Amino acid sequence: LAAAVAAGKVRVPTHIVSTICDDRGEEPTYYGVTMSELIEGDYGIGDVISLLWFKRKLPKYATKFIEMCVMMCADHGPCVSGAHNAIVTSRAGKDLVSCLVSGLLTIGPRFGGAIDDAARYFKVACDAGQTPSEFVEGLKRKGIRVAGIGHRIKSKDNRDKRVELLQKYARKFFPSTRYLDYAVDVETYTLQKAPNLVLNVDGCIGALFLDLLASSGCFSDKEAAEIVEIGYLNALFVVARSIGLVGHALDQKRLQQPLYRHPWEDVLYTS
Amino acid sequence: LAAAVAAGKVRVPTHIVSTICDDRGEEPTYYGVTMSELIEGDYGIGDVISLLWFKRKLPKYATKFIEMCVMMCADHGPCVSGAHNAIVTSRAGKDLVSCLVSGLLTIGPRFGGAIDDAARYFKVACDAGQTPSEFVEGLKRKGIRVAGIGHRIKSKDNRDKRVELLQKYARKFFPSTRYLDYAVDVETYTLQKAPNLVLNVDGCIGALFLDLLASSGCFSDKEAAEIVEIGYLNALFVVARSIGLVGHALDQKRLQQPLYRHPWEDVLYTS
Amino acid sequence: LAAAVAAGKVRVPTHIVSTICDDRGEEPTYYGVTMSELIEGDYGIGDVISLLWFKRKLPKYATKFIEMCVMMCADHGPCVSGAHNAIVTSRAGKDLVSCLVSGLLTIGPRFGGAIDDAARYFKVACDAGQTPSEFVEGLKRKGIRVAGIGHRIKSKDNRDKRVELLQKYARKFFPSTRYLDYAVDVETYTLQKAPNLVLNVDGCIGALFLDLLASSGCFSDKEAAEIVEIGYLNALFVVARSIGLVGHALDQKRLQQPLYRHPWEDVLYTS
Amino acid sequence: LAAAVAAGKVRVPTHIVSTICDDRGEEPTYYGVTMSELIEGDYGIGDVISLLWFKRKLPKYATKFIEMCVMMCADHGPCVSGAHNAIVTSRAGKDLVSCLVSGLLTIGPRFGGAIDDAARYFKVACDAGQTPSEFVEGLKRKGIRVAGIGHRIKSKDNRDKRVELLQKYARKFFPSTRYLDYAVDVETYTLQKAPNLVLNVDGCIGALFLDLLASSGCFSDKEAAEIVEIGYLNALFVVARSIGLVGHALDQKRLQQPLYRHPWEDVLYTS
Ligand SMILES: CC(C)(COP(=O)(O)OP(=O)(O)OC[C@H]1O[C@@H](n2cnc3c(N)ncnc32)[C@H](O)[C@@H]1OP(=O)(O)O)[C@@H](O)C(=O)NCCC(=O)NCCS
Ligand SMILES: CC(C)(COP(=O)(O)OP(=O)(O)OC[C@H]1O[C@@H](n2cnc3c(N)ncnc32)[C@H](O)[C@@H]1OP(=O)(O)O)[C@@H](O)C(=O)NCCC(=O)NCCS
Ligand SMILES: CC(C)(COP(=O)(O)OP(=O)(O)OC[C@H]1O[C@@H](n2cnc3c(N)ncnc32)[C@H](O)[C@@H]1OP(=O)(O)O)[C@@H](O)C(=O)NCCC(=O)NCCS
Ligand SMILES: CC(C)(COP(=O)(O)OP(=O)(O)OC[C@H]1O[C@@H](n2cnc3c(N)ncnc32)[C@H](O)[C@@H]1OP(=O)(O)O)[C@@H](O)C(=O)NCCC(=O)NCCS
Repeated sequence: LAAAVAAGKVRVPTHIVSTICDDRGEEPTYYGVTMSELIEGDYGIGDVISLLWFKRKLPKYATKFIEMCVMMCADHGPCVSGAHNAIVTSRAGKDLVSCLVSGLLTIGPRFGGAIDDAARYFKVACDAGQTPSEFVEGLKRKGIRVAGIGHRIKSKDNRDKRVELLQKYARKFFPSTRYLDYAVDVETYTLQKAPNLVLNVDGCIGALFLDLLASSGCFSDKEAAEIVEIGYLNALFVVARSIGLVGHALDQKRLQQPLYRHPWEDVLYTS
Repeated sequence: LAAAVAAGKVRVPTHIVSTICDDRGEEPTYYGVTMSELIEGDYGIGDVISLLWFKRKLPKYATKFIEMCVMMCADHGPCVSGAHNAIVTSRAGKDLVSCLVSGLLTIGPRFGGAIDDAARYFKVACDAGQTPSEFVEGLKRKGIRVAGIGHRIKSKDNRDKRVELLQKYARKFFPSTRYLDYAVDVETYTLQKAPNLVLNVDGCIGALFLDLLASSGCFSDKEAAEIVEIGYLNALFVVARSIGLVGHALDQKRLQQPLYRHPWEDVLYTS
Repeated sequence: LAAAVAAGKVRVPTHIVSTICDDRGEEPTYYGVTMSELIEGDYGIGDVISLLWFKRKLPKYATKFIEMCVMMCADHGPCVSGAHNAIVTSRAGKDLVSCLVSGLLTIGPRFGGAIDDAARYFKVACDAGQTPSEFVEGLKRKGIRVAGIGHRIKSKDNRDKRVELLQKYARKFFPSTRYLDYAVDVETYTLQKAPNLVLNVDGCIGALFLDLLASSGCFSDKEAAEIVEIGYLNALFVVARSIGLVGHALDQKRLQQPLYRHPWEDVLYTS
Repeated sequence: LAAAVAAGKVRVPTHIVSTICDDRGEEPTYYGVTMSELIEGDYGIGDVISLLWFKRKLPKYATKFIEMCVMMCADHGPCVSGAHNAIVTSRAGKDLVSCLVSGLLTIGPRFGGAIDDAARYFKVACDAGQTPSEFVEGLKRKGIRVAGIGHRIKSKDNRDKRVELLQKYARKFFPSTRYLDYAVDVETYTLQKAPNLVLNVDGCIGALFLDLLASSGCFSDKEAAEIVEIGYLNALFVVARSIGLVGHALDQKRLQQPLYRHPWEDVLYTS
């Protein structure tokens, strides 16, 4: 049988379908691009992400944007949930993968995972031609916070540098910034309500990815909608933050920190 | 082909070999024991563990001992690494499995994982007829701590209740406690060095499992050695503590605790 | 400061609140019950789960029911998602915790996680006095499958032994089986539609837990509703299956199986 | 107290020490480099990795080398352990992070984790001036395989493209390739034993990182030794492969693949 299969005469019914990387030939290929082409041509990590996730080659300004997102989301200090858990696991003497994973598992609705929702909300509202007031008040009636809006510390007069840098880049290189403009209009409206209701970095990345999907000419409407619906964009944060979580895990090993035990006096034992 | 396979005429070369549970018949069986037999006969969770891990039915005193270990290792408060990470993940709004897993990943050499090593060391030393002094000083020369010995708080005059309970049970029901006796002799020796070098719960479980493997008449010497070498015993702690980690994750959800952020002032930023 | 804190004079604002296990005294306690009491009194693993998750002592018939659920969900062969991933990870030479965790992460809507939803649906429908027909057709209109109903292989004339065993037990020992009776009425209705639309083991556990919450006299209505809403019941499956996943991981190590590689000829490479 | 802490008057004893990223100021910094500098200066993802892991700025040829490693290790098809587990978890309907993590946990001694060991062995041998024959035969006597040597498919006459590309780059840009040259000498020796005992991609990355640590002028000998001992280099593979694992998880969601169940006929049920 094995011989027959090898000879291509019979074919066992396949149980797995896969589309992104072919490892069967001389060189592995990423959506058709060989390793040699990747390294000798003018490709970077942003291109690898495009090929493996979006299954197409994107223009330079787009892959550079992806790399900027990865760079700016790579770390945000030792106090956030993800880094904290990676640190605790590293101090328990566990291997690097366990440390990384223990941290990654905290990424979700409250930490690192607002990009997809921001994109989903902005897309629906902007495509439907809602005014910022209609959009914001509509969500408010349903008791939903505007994803991508709001910050603990940043405010009207103390903007988030990362948001500024992304906007500046997109206005210079993107064919259109229609969704970003909409997001900024929403921010203008919410800033009238409270000074900390700024467009945050998740909201900015979400809106700009919508612009990329819509105006790069690389995605059909159906493809763009599918990407937003399935939720590809939080993955940018996940991969980016892996770099930081690894950094924290290795840092603790280098510092030879002992087993972490949360202090008793910081716990309220109640019932 | 599928038809031929179904008819048993040809057989695709199997890629997986498995021995513990058969799900193909009327009822799933655990090492041959059907569900009905499990529930209607006098079986408990200790028997399920015996059947699925050790692939044999163990006597009642042994499965009761396994259940005691599970009960006593199920939780140890919110401050230890495992519970802490489960709590942080739960407060990040993640699903139950993610919380549990984030906590489990801290179990290892410094937290919860000294049972196998304790069993390994005690077995070699006791089988070789080393005196406690030879054993302890031998490890010391190699710079290795005696696994299963030592406690943060417990001491000569303030014994660990769990160790007392396990010893009492084993002396009453086990055919032999040769390895436990050896471990206690080691403790007598180490207590001369420092009052906190008591036999701890990991060491006690490790030694008692050696006794069970050697004297229950259910394991050949080769089988016993394999179990100790592969390291089955930490799994008792892992499964037991799953109960507690789930408890902590659900507790935080019930208390509707917000995202955890470690306080800045508790971190020393250095280089 | 540390001294002041110790003296109880000042109190740093606590960052963690916890309720289930107190590790500060002589012996750790599970919701107030000491280790000695647990072991010397007539407690079992079902009681430990009650104390740590539900924060109360439940009657014997209830804790025995919990233990039956754990026993019957402990494993279901090597082919299901969870066992498969644990096997693959074990064959990659990874530690026991990594193997277990890799398997646990597959538990969810399609594998092992229908107990909470079954309980949620049955509770709403039964409390509202819906007839089985109203209930089933109502869900159908919304395009939702009835959680807890349906099986790949089992059918009208080939019942699931586990469901039979649980029903028999509950009818003998539970004060009321109102929700189970409702679930069985639903089954009678769905069986008219197709012979495989039987009450499955998830549905049976979900309904019976509702009966336990409502009729044991141990939970207020508010507490019962909270447990169903937060979703405590899938945790029974998660803890139970941990036993089986550990079994599969150890099994592969004992069999010294090499690195698993999925066969090329079983994959359809497409675009 | 909180006020006093804020005022810097008292300082609670810190429980966490951290060195890589400071999130307290206007902009977060990666080892002192601000976000603006990162984006507006000529920095890339290789620089972010250098700053967060190695805590220093590395020359361009070095950060480009890091990026090449990430690009070439990003994916290797759906059949390898990591991709397979990510695919199975995705098909169980789980969230992206769970899929990624289930795959990452397979990375270790047999899959993706030979870079650190290759570096460790080559360093000791080369620094000690061992001839390739002494080195290889010495390991053989201890029953240890030469990490970084050997391949399933590639051989003398069918070299791995990735290894060729990395060598070519390093010979052009690295100040020294002493360790690579040593690794190639080892390969020359092992190729006399069998045609598939080529220098593989893990071995090539391991040797070249040794060259980078030794000849870039950025690391003291002590620092280089610490990096090799702690094991930083497998992390390159881990972060790189995260990209591919995410790709596979999203791929399955897009293809709406159902729950995976390993085929019964591919399993040998034995005892
Ligand atoms: C980022 C965030 C958690 C910061 O929260 P915070 O500064 O602690 O704000 P608070 O929760 O104290 O809210 C302050 C007020 O602003 C309102 N508010 C905050 N964020 C809001 C939003 N996104 N949309 C609408 N109202 C918002 C709150 O409802 C609250 O109003 P109230 O006092 O009348 O109840 C919050 O803005 C948010 O949830 N944003 C949406 C999700 C998001 O984008 N997260 C990105 C981080 S990954
Ligand atoms: C459990 C344990 C971590 C408690 O440690 P601790 O109370 O913080 O003890 P310390 O690390 O402060 O050690 C105090 C002294 O006792 C010695 N010591 C502690 N445990 C020892 C052991 N198991 N064997 C030999 N010496 C030991 C230390 O070397 C130290 O001696 P020193 O001051 O001359 O260097 C420790 O005893 C240990 O590592 N035991 C072995 C592993 C084990 O069984 N763990 C079970 C928990 S899962
Ligand atoms: C368990 C289950 C996956 C078995 O599925 P299956 O045998 O492969 O059944 P199929 O998916 O082939 O469905 C066959 C028909 O029965 C219907 N059906 C199956 N389960 C149903 C349910 N729970 N409620 C209503 N209709 C159902 C299907 O819609 C389908 O009808 P159609 O042919 O008109 O479209 C399925 O019954 C189910 O999803 N049940 C609900 C979830 C659940 O309880 N899971 C427990 C396992 S943890
Ligand atoms: C990569 C690897 C698993 C490929 O293995 P393979 O092609 O299946 O080779 P086999 O296991 O069939 O070995 C064939 C023969 O070559 C020998 N061999 C293979 N790799 C060897 C190595 N690295 N050093 C010494 N001998 C080796 C084997 O011992 C065997 O000899 P034998 O028949 O006399 O017993 C193997 O070469 C290896 O383990 N290398 C070291 C680890 C490593 O670098 N892994 C990189 C992948 S992440």
